[in-house]
Amino acid sequence: MKKVILAPDSFKGTMSALKICSIMSAVIKGHFPQTEIVKIPIADGGEGTVDCFIEAMGGERINVEVKGPYFEDINAFYGVLADGSTAIIEMAAAAGLPLVEGNKNPAATTTYGVGQLICHAVERGCCNIILGIGGSCTNDGGAGMAAALGIQFFDEGNKVFIPTGGSLNRITRIDDSCKLKALEHCTIVTACDVNNPLCGRNGAAAIFSPQKGADAGMVKLLDQNLMHFAKVIEKSMNKYILDIPGAGAAGGLGGGAIAFLGAELKPGIEIVLDMVGFDGLLQGADMVFTGEGKIDGQSLNGKAVIGVARRASRSGVPVIAVGGDLGEGIEAVYQEGVSVLLSTNRMAIPFEEARLRCEKDLELTMDSIMRLFKLHELGWNIK
Amino acid sequence: MKKVILAPDSFKGTMSALKICSIMSAVIKGHFPQTEIVKIPIADGGEGTVDCFIEAMGGERINVEVKGPYFEDINAFYGVLADGSTAIIEMAAAAGLPLVEGNKNPAATTTYGVGQLICHAVERGCCNIILGIGGSCTNDGGAGMAAALGIQFFDEGNKVFIPTGGSLNRITRIDDSCKLKALEHCTIVTACDVNNPLCGRNGAAAIFSPQKGADAGMVKLLDQNLMHFAKVIEKSMNKYILDIPGAGAAGGLGGGAIAFLGAELKPGIEIVLDMVGFDGLLQGADMVFTGEGKIDGQSLNGKAVIGVARRASRSGVPVIAVGGDLGEGIEAVYQEGVSVLLSTNRMAIPFEEARLRCEKDLELTMDSIMRLFKLHELGWNIK
Repeated sequence: MKKVILAPDSFKGTMSALKICSIMSAVIKGHFPQTEIVKIPIADGGEGTVDCFIEAMGGERINVEVKGPYFEDINAFYGVLADGSTAIIEMAAAAGLPLVEGNKNPAATTTYGVGQLICHAVERGCCNIILGIGGSCTNDGGAGMAAALGIQFFDEGNKVFIPTGGSLNRITRIDDSCKLKALEHCTIVTACDVNNPLCGRNGAAAIFSPQKGADAGMVKLLDQNLMHFAKVIEKSMNKYILDIPGAGAAGGLGGGAIAFLGAELKPGIEIVLDMVGFDGLLQGADMVFTGEGKIDGQSLNGKAVIGVARRASRSGVPVIAVGGDLGEGIEAVYQEGVSVLLSTNRMAIPFEEARLRCEKDLELTMDSIMRLFKLHELGWNIK
Repeated sequence: MKKVILAPDSFKGTMSALKICSIMSAVIKGHFPQTEIVKIPIADGGEGTVDCFIEAMGGERINVEVKGPYFEDINAFYGVLADGSTAIIEMAAAAGLPLVEGNKNPAATTTYGVGQLICHAVERGCCNIILGIGGSCTNDGGAGMAAALGIQFFDEGNKVFIPTGGSLNRITRIDDSCKLKALEHCTIVTACDVNNPLCGRNGAAAIFSPQKGADAGMVKLLDQNLMHFAKVIEKSMNKYILDIPGAGAAGGLGGGAIAFLGAELKPGIEIVLDMVGFDGLLQGADMVFTGEGKIDGQSLNGKAVIGVARRASRSGVPVIAVGGDLGEGIEAVYQEGVSVLLSTNRMAIPFEEARLRCEKDLELTMDSIMRLFKLHELGWNIK
């Protein structure tokens, strides 16, 4: 093998994509020391997104003090890639669920800090912004983010305020004339893997707010507030976001990013693969390794393994996918271009036990694959 | 692939070696319809041994009524291979643990029926006897078997009787002058994968009789009785079996087979591989598939996977081993000639769940291996 591309997602709950790349790489190097290895740890927009991009493309972490979910001061960060003009921002750094552990309240939390991160990046000269929106604790429709970028929300008394999920209903008017000017020259892409609309039974509140701490009553309130929010946006800004697929992502920040930032929503995997120039990297590659904690035939869109496989198979490069668990319906996965699926499980033991040995199991599974490859190197005839 | 050999052991508790061969074969045929497939389901001497040999070599099952473990009439069987002169006898058919389920007593059970099966085969003209001794419920040192073949055991009152584990101590003299004459022209090989001596703390009673129903007191009695038995054999027949490795197998029938039948004890896997002419079959083979329920680096001798791998690697044929569970120390397994080890587990679930899906899991694992092979067929470059 002259050139191999590693493009795994994280294994949720066990290993980061970075860790998986490093294990895969070490095993391949052990068997094929001459092989060129390209590492593209796949970011899903949630925690770890910045580090994945920096690993794949070079760059640095920028530390910034911003407002946290309850307007408290926190230390957050974003990434600037080696080109100096592309910023990677993970929403979770300023409005992530782990930040409100033990005190969840999607009616009161804000995305203000996310806006501050964007502002910092733009003022630093970044004109391409990648916004990862996984793992949020908010339901404010991105109003906080917008406020940090200069957009003004007025209440009944015509006073400017920063709405949260519980007070979106108080917005009477929106004025974006003071929006950060530099934003106009920016391209903003939001990594979004869900198609939920802003409101209704598949909307942000109904589907995602319970895990952020909302009870049934609050879900209803949050949903009504988002509906009001969309109507005011339509009236004040002449933008209609209610039914856009993905508007309901990240507590409605998906919709807010469209309305306030002119952002494009795009599956995270496609953003990553475009950014790293995956199609170009495939030239001359003998093999792609990808992987995911669970691989099955359900909801294939937006899955890292599938995104990788579709492109690789178009270029005629075989794809070996390694999964923690391989579920039902894998025939569909094969049809999307995956050449071979293998599980890292080596013992019939429950997940709580398996997770403790997952790194070694991945290493040994990769080792077995390399040994299969070596059969050919030794001249054994498989055809 | 022109020619592939399948030589799996059973996966204990889930799939027979026959079943595994048939699953492996179907998957390989699905991907490589032209491939010649040689099936050698590996028998370990226990239940299923006869069927494995018949599958690998052709032959028929012979049904015979014999005495069961408690001298009751039962329907048992043995196999005669296509050559007409080789009989495969599994001890479990006449003295197996499942026959005494709910009523275990190694002091009272007999191997008499095993002798009857041998007698039937010999009188039918068989001169090669393969005796599989796994899964016995007895501890009679093979005295019952010997009695069925004409050997006479005398008690204190100089009366002939059929000793069992609990009455071996009553033997005062053994007379083999009435032994079935035809036995003299027979070669008898006993498939034996343990090295336990007849008596002592690693002996038949200490190690194996508890699972046959003996409590501590009975273990002691059975051990003393076997010691007495060995002494009488020495005195009456001038044969010394006490310390022969494997004499303690199958409740001491290992030792009895040596003393009364002149049998050779040999690892089951070596018997099978010799019988089927494994070394010859390897000529022109591209690949061997083997497997076992659990594969690890412990106690490699006598393991089917290792026996297969040692011979195949001597012939330069790669060996792919598939295991239900892959345990610790597999480096030792690779050193014995296994080229690649893969687990059939595809989910992190406990054995009770995994066993219900083991057939499908094996099928899908084989399918993944075939898909890896196909990468080469399509011209992808792995070297």
